[in-house]
Amino acid sequence: MQRVAIKGIGQTPVREHWDMAVHNLAVDAARAALDDAGIDKVDAIFLGNMTSDALNKQHHLATKVADYLGMRGVETVKLEAACGSGAAAVRQGMLAIAGGMMDAVLVVGVEKMTDSKGAETTRALATAADADYEVIHGVTFVGLNALVMQRYMHTYGYVQADFAPFALNAHANGANNPNALFREPISLRTYERGRAVAEPITLFDASPIGDGAAAVVLVSAEKAPDAVKILGSASSIDTLAVHDREDPLWLKAAEISTRKAMAQAGVTHDDIDIFELHDAFSVMAALSLESSGFVEPGQGVPFAQSGAIFPNGGLPIQTMGGLKARGHPVGATGVYQIVEATQQMRGTAGDAQIDGVEIAMTQNIGGSGATIVTHILGK
Amino acid sequence: MQRVAIKGIGQTPVREHWDMAVHNLAVDAARAALDDAGIDKVDAIFLGNMTSDALNKQHHLATKVADYLGMRGVETVKLEAACGSGAAAVRQGMLAIAGGMMDAVLVVGVEKMTDSKGAETTRALATAADADYEVIHGVTFVGLNALVMQRYMHTYGYVQADFAPFALNAHANGANNPNALFREPISLRTYERGRAVAEPITLFDASPIGDGAAAVVLVSAEKAPDAVKILGSASSIDTLAVHDREDPLWLKAAEISTRKAMAQAGVTHDDIDIFELHDAFSVMAALSLESSGFVEPGQGVPFAQSGAIFPNGGLPIQTMGGLKARGHPVGATGVYQIVEATQQMRGTAGDAQIDGVEIAMTQNIGGSGATIVTHILGK
Repeated sequence: MQRVAIKGIGQTPVREHWDMAVHNLAVDAARAALDDAGIDKVDAIFLGNMTSDALNKQHHLATKVADYLGMRGVETVKLEAACGSGAAAVRQGMLAIAGGMMDAVLVVGVEKMTDSKGAETTRALATAADADYEVIHGVTFVGLNALVMQRYMHTYGYVQADFAPFALNAHANGANNPNALFREPISLRTYERGRAVAEPITLFDASPIGDGAAAVVLVSAEKAPDAVKILGSASSIDTLAVHDREDPLWLKAAEISTRKAMAQAGVTHDDIDIFELHDAFSVMAALSLESSGFVEPGQGVPFAQSGAIFPNGGLPIQTMGGLKARGHPVGATGVYQIVEATQQMRGTAGDAQIDGVEIAMTQNIGGSGATIVTHILGK
Repeated sequence: MQRVAIKGIGQTPVREHWDMAVHNLAVDAARAALDDAGIDKVDAIFLGNMTSDALNKQHHLATKVADYLGMRGVETVKLEAACGSGAAAVRQGMLAIAGGMMDAVLVVGVEKMTDSKGAETTRALATAADADYEVIHGVTFVGLNALVMQRYMHTYGYVQADFAPFALNAHANGANNPNALFREPISLRTYERGRAVAEPITLFDASPIGDGAAAVVLVSAEKAPDAVKILGSASSIDTLAVHDREDPLWLKAAEISTRKAMAQAGVTHDDIDIFELHDAFSVMAALSLESSGFVEPGQGVPFAQSGAIFPNGGLPIQTMGGLKARGHPVGATGVYQIVEATQQMRGTAGDAQIDGVEIAMTQNIGGSGATIVTHILGK
């Protein structure tokens, strides 16, 4: 089994890209990653995306992107695991290199969500939940997460405003990231004045949709000995429906994939210098910290309130804005996480740089926790 | 690199499954494959599907299926390459085993297409083509293939009725396959009386949609030395839009993937005993034979007319009905092809049995030829 290196990274800013179609975004990010890697040929392109058929009327997107890259004859496939599609694509690329089946792969995550009417987008995102037993009752994806947040607050005795640090940290870091959708810090007052989206989720508890693409080029570590490496990679599922979970406040798939990835990497929680978690909603950030084993159940919120998640804290998270401020073009997010963690480890994160990042963890969630893909990066 | 064996196969009949949701179909096929393999645990589930979000309102399908199989904690991901999704999923499973990254994988292809209104299904299938440069003009997927058939007839001097043998062969073989959607032979007269769907494509030049699922369990050959093996596996893309092809009557992706797969398997065209090709439309069958190198350009139709494609001919195709008669639940087809070829090689094809099948070739096409995945099976 070969160790896998991240030889090139690329990304577009997350924006409302009026002038770019979904494949244009992917091609831009891919081209940047290929240039960064200094190569122009790969064995395969693995593309992560969730909504291109519903919102852009385009399935077969991996092939379209390869076509537009001029790579006729290459192999391509799209990977989908709802909002976990990006990291799922990274993992498939990693498996091909690690197993020695390919020499170089390009992984692209892309989503273009802002051309659609809001109701269309909401319907498309709801397909991440259980159509037959959740969505049939009229719940939206935000609604499901609101139920989880409500339960969390009830169980552990928190109020909605206790979740503020997650948003404050994300926006403060996004302000240092030119690729982020939201590039202004926010105050506590601003957070508290956020209107309800689906109670108790308010505006600043929910990550924004956006258009964007991120890409990485993976090769065997022998070919790029100085590059950032993927030390651990694991994926796990849980029940699709929240009501089927053993404990709706426990992300079993985070527990399992984190344990596996850490074992592969030979690291423990104390070794993790930054954690790019899946803060689609503030409650998910808390649950991710808890279920991945960084803090005890119910302690995610106090951990955030203690400042530990901020850049100068014990476990910086969302160092370049996270889903909340960098944005959440859903199928691209998992690849943005890998790109950002790599920037941090290379020392090229600019104003968002965290010092001394040796080991980084990224975690991408599909649905309300049903698919979780965890990666650990190192040198 | 490990050789990969097909330890278990399973399939549902292709029907209008009134009483089964998309995940139920997948679970049935998966359960049958796991039972056939004699195992109940796998490292990962790779699921091929194209339209579950558009037509069944369910994305995140691989996770849902794993959940319903009771396999919490397993790894899953969905693969999509339009109508090539099934073989793309087989290939991903194969890569994981061949590279030694996993010990056992389950590959499921599933599609449930018959609950939707016809216009919805047509729109969903059109996402396999180029949204920005083909479908925007109002062409449907059948329409695109009709243009190709028209060009083929013009270039080589054929009439529409010359394509009859493809349908006659498929239906005759489907009549011997209890899992096929259409289980009656058809006469030449019936073929000729078929109404136009999109001229020159008539009813019997076009494969039917349907509901169905097929599954395989893959392990390393050491674990199943007597099982059918995957000797060659390759995937290639071409331009997405037909009008961008170097030659609209040449499937370059078939040429490339066939050449690669045969080289891996160490076989030539003469060694292939049966060819399960992608007869979504009769012209595609002709082009597949030609571009894969079995006959010269333009000779696909005469080859069929000579009887060579029939069970007692030199190169039997669609031995259990093919897309035309077994049916084309689009994302499942590529896995049905593998299952059927395996049945032929095991000698368990029943009334559809072709004698002495030692080497089988399967080929699954996404879109109008933009993604083509070719496999070669042997002992």
